[in-house]
Order: sequence, then structure tokens, then C-alpha cells
Amino acid sequence: MRGDPSPVPNFEARVRASFANQPFMATLGAILTRVQPGAVEIRLPVRMELTQQHGYVHAAAVAAIADSACGYAAFSLMPAQSGVLTVEYKINLMAPARGEALLARGRVIRAGYTLTVCEAEVVALEAGEERSVALLVSTVMTVRDRLEVRE
Amino acid sequence: MRGDPSPVPNFEARVRASFANQPFMATLGAILTRVQPGAVEIRLPVRMELTQQHGYVHAAAVAAIADSACGYAAFSLMPAQSGVLTVEYKINLMAPARGEALLARGRVIRAGYTLTVCEAEVVALEAGEERSVALLVSTVMTVRDRLEVRE
Amino acid sequence: MRGDPSPVPNFEARVRASFANQPFMATLGAILTRVQPGAVEIRLPVRMELTQQHGYVHAAAVAAIADSACGYAAFSLMPAQSGVLTVEYKINLMAPARGEALLARGRVIRAGYTLTVCEAEVVALEAGEERSVALLVSTVMTVRDRLEVRE
Amino acid sequence: MRGDPSPVPNFEARVRASFANQPFMATLGAILTRVQPGAVEIRLPVRMELTQQHGYVHAAAVAAIADSACGYAAFSLMPAQSGVLTVEYKINLMAPARGEALLARGRVIRAGYTLTVCEAEVVALEAGEERSVALLVSTVMTVRDRLEVRE
Repeated sequence: MRGDPSPVPNFEARVRASFANQPFMATLGAILTRVQPGAVEIRLPVRMELTQQHGYVHAAAVAAIADSACGYAAFSLMPAQSGVLTVEYKINLMAPARGEALLARGRVIRAGYTLTVCEAEVVALEAGEERSVALLVSTVMTVRDRLEVRE
Repeated sequence: MRGDPSPVPNFEARVRASFANQPFMATLGAILTRVQPGAVEIRLPVRMELTQQHGYVHAAAVAAIADSACGYAAFSLMPAQSGVLTVEYKINLMAPARGEALLARGRVIRAGYTLTVCEAEVVALEAGEERSVALLVSTVMTVRDRLEVRE
Repeated sequence: MRGDPSPVPNFEARVRASFANQPFMATLGAILTRVQPGAVEIRLPVRMELTQQHGYVHAAAVAAIADSACGYAAFSLMPAQSGVLTVEYKINLMAPARGEALLARGRVIRAGYTLTVCEAEVVALEAGEERSVALLVSTVMTVRDRLEVRE
Repeated sequence: MRGDPSPVPNFEARVRASFANQPFMATLGAILTRVQPGAVEIRLPVRMELTQQHGYVHAAAVAAIADSACGYAAFSLMPAQSGVLTVEYKINLMAPARGEALLARGRVIRAGYTLTVCEAEVVALEAGEERSVALLVSTVMTVRDRLEVRE
């Protein structure tokens, strides 16, 4: 990680409160497993409801946890009273997403005043092994002045 | 659209059968509203279960219908006995996704033998108006020889 | 194009002055052929010095004119005293870039206060025909307060 | 790096021969400094001819060495008689590219039969220090059957 890594006090509680406020994460069944300054991990137990036509987890569910892991990694470094918005992301789907669970590990690559660049790797956990299934790079915005996007 | 646009006979039935086979599309509540050769439209009624912490539809749900509209636009031009895989995509989230429903319009930009480039725009429908909320570009692969990814 | 399209007075002169100030555009031999509010066209005559190992124009030269066409399309809508920076872009290289010249057509998809989303298509001109060779989507930033990036 | 990393014999000579065959790399003044299986480094001395309107190295020159470092990292793992093509890439420009020289470090993230995913970081060297200026992710294709794209 580069840029200013000093997190606000209470960063973990803020990240956890925001994550708990996302109905879509509950719809997916995603779990926030680790919150560190500039690094967040989200776990997604594989269920039939998340699959596509070939029986693998749908790319959108893979992207959902990768994008969120990135967004919260960025948010963990943002000042109080600010909000986080994903501006754009790009994802490469490298292998079928199957197994017991997926794990997205997001981290801040560079934190700027307005924009933060993040990267997440998604691995599939299957029979005690980790296999890399996706790589996501995102641009995240720190929103300071709009009441509706705080947190 | 560029490249060879001649669809296989029965392209609409193949696209609809594959879409119906995706549990995740049902989990989202997405509806396949239009299938043309090289162009597919997917509608997503907005529900609380799809939202993020600010009350807008989660970027991942926006990406899900955009990616699928692209993938099926590409699939509509693919030969029988082939399957479709998204290799990668990039999405720009341009405005909050809110309203009564979202509509993803995917189309083929260039269809090659192995790779097809597609683009989708996602618009939000609110009070009789359309507002553009996202732009997605994807690379989709035609899979000819792997039994597990047919359709 | 969406968002506020009202250009500043004198937008064409500002774009042309900035373009003329880019030594790298001269190194490539790129020519600014058209400037409209939110839409810019750049032409690149094909020369051996721009090619890669297969004899086609190098992807980086293709990206250079596409990125610049996008950046200046965005800049044409920006207020006086602001500067333009490319935050990120993604390019799909769809066909070999060969012929007499390449033409990049950039246009603004959505102009926001801080960020503008643009798209460019690059076509190759060969024997009186146009062939699409690349598609680029970029995120461009309006810089208002840093002296060193004005224009 | 994941996937099969076993390089063909003579991989370094093949990479160096292909690089030497790219007139555009000479136009930029780029130097191939390191070739390992799945990892390639390219150096670009900063010159005025490469700059944009603010005096920094143009994003396209930054992307050129990052894309090439990725492509050759992938090529170093490809079988003899095959060629390499960049399908698409995405670059985040994180800081102004200035200093004495830029260094692009490309590496293979996942090598597949047809497609390889690569990542490159570009750092600026200034007064004995390294500063990260860009991150690029690319999808590269192994071309086995087309005579015109060997190497």
C-alpha cells in the first residue's frame, strides 16, 4: 500500500457498520471476515442460488465481494464524515468459481485525496486448497460533501 | 455491430433456455426482456434486497445484468454446441442506480472466432424517464470444445 | 452525450493550444482534425516508426490517440482555469491496426463535476474503407485547484 | 504467478529478438532490462519528446512499456512457434510520471492455454527513489495458427 495509510480511529467499527447496512451483502450471504487499515477480506459461502448456467458462482457474485472488499479497504483509510463510492472497476475472471466458499482479499494500492486505487484477488476454497479465480482493480472516490453518501 | 452477425437458427430459444438455467438471475429477480441477434435486454425491478448502504442498487447487481446482457448478446451469434464465458469486463458507474427498475442493453461490438467484444448501457427508469447509470465493456469467449460449458 | 454539455467560450482554441503543447503527439505525428463540444477526432498517419513486431501500429500508439481524443473531448466541456487528467482507461484491441492512417473519435458519455466518462473508437483507413480496430473507455478528472495541471 | 510456468528453452533470446523487432520501442527509447520466465522489466529514460502538456511522460508512453512488459512476460512462457497479441488492457494512472526514468515490471498472473492474465507496475525513478505511477492489467492471447503473428 502507498499513500497515507493512517486510518481514522474506529475504522473497523465504521466498516462493519456500513457493511451491515448493505442488504445486498445479506442477499448474497457474504460475511466480512477481516478488517485492517487498507485491507479487507470478505467470504462468500457457495450456494446454488449464486450460480450461473454451468453451475459455477456467477461472475457478478464474484465481482460483488471483490468490489466490496476493495471499497471497504479504501473506506478504512478515509476520514470520518466521508463516504465511499466505486467509480469503476475491471475484473478478470481467470478460472471457474466453485468450491465450498470464495474469499475476496481487497487492499489499497494508492490512496489519494479524492481517488483511491484498490486491487482484490478472489480465491476459491475447495478441499483445503486455495485456487485464484479472479483479479479486480477498482477506482474508489472519497465523498466529503454529500450527505446522502456518508459511510 | 461488426463481424459476422448471422445468428444460428433458434438463437432466441437457446438464449432464453440458458438464462432460465441461471439461478443467480432468479435470485436477483432479473427478467430477459428482449433477444435479437447480437443485442439483448435485461430488466431488473428495484427491490430493497438489492441495495447497498446508501439505498441505491448495489453496483454488483448493476454489473450482473450488464454482464449478462453482453454475454447473451454474444451467445446469440455463436454456433450451436458452443458455450459462452465472460473473460473480463470493465464497468463505469456513472450515477446512483435508483428508480422503479434498471434496464441493461447489451450489444456485440465485434464478434471474432474466439473472442467477442460487447458493450452494455444500464439505464434507470424513474417516473417515466430514463437515466444512464452505467457503461460496461466486456470480452466474451466462445467455448467450442469443453463439454461443461456448453450454453 | 449526457450531463451538462455547455462548453466554455473559446473551447476549440483551448483544446488546440493544449494539443500543440504535447511533444509526444508530435513524436507520434498525430494531428488534431476535429474539435466539437464533447467530441474530438485525432488522426495518425501510419509510419514504420509506430509499428510493433508484426508490422501493425503498436497498441500504445492506438491507445495514445484514443486516450487523447477522450481527454480533449472532456476538456472541451470544462470550465476555464481547469486542467484535465486521465485517471484510468481500458482498451480493447479488436483488429490489427494497419492501413494509411488511424482515426480516433472520442466523445463524452457523461460529464460530472469531478469525473467525466468518455469513449473512443479507433478506425483504420485502408483503400477507402474504414475498419474498427479498437474501443477505449476512460475516466477523466477535472482539476480545478492545481496550478501545474492547468490545460 | 500461477498456471504452468515452464518456459520454452531459449525464452530469453526469443523475447529479446521480438523486442528488437519493434520499431515503436526504439522510437520511444525503451530498453529491455530483464527477462525471466513470466516476468519482464522494461526501462524508459525520460525525454522531452515523450511528455504531455504538463511536462510529465505521456500516459501512452507509460502504458506502452507496461503493456509490453506484460506481453513479453506472457510470451516468455509460450510454446515455440506461437505468437503473442494483447487482447485488452486497463491502466490506472496514479501519479505524475516524471523523474530520470520509468521502469515497468510485468508478470504473469495466470497463464492459460489461450489467454494469459498479466499485471505490470510502473515506477518512476527520481533522485534515487522509486515512486509508483501506474498499474496495468492485461489479457494476452497465445496465437498458435496464424503465420503473420508468430513472435
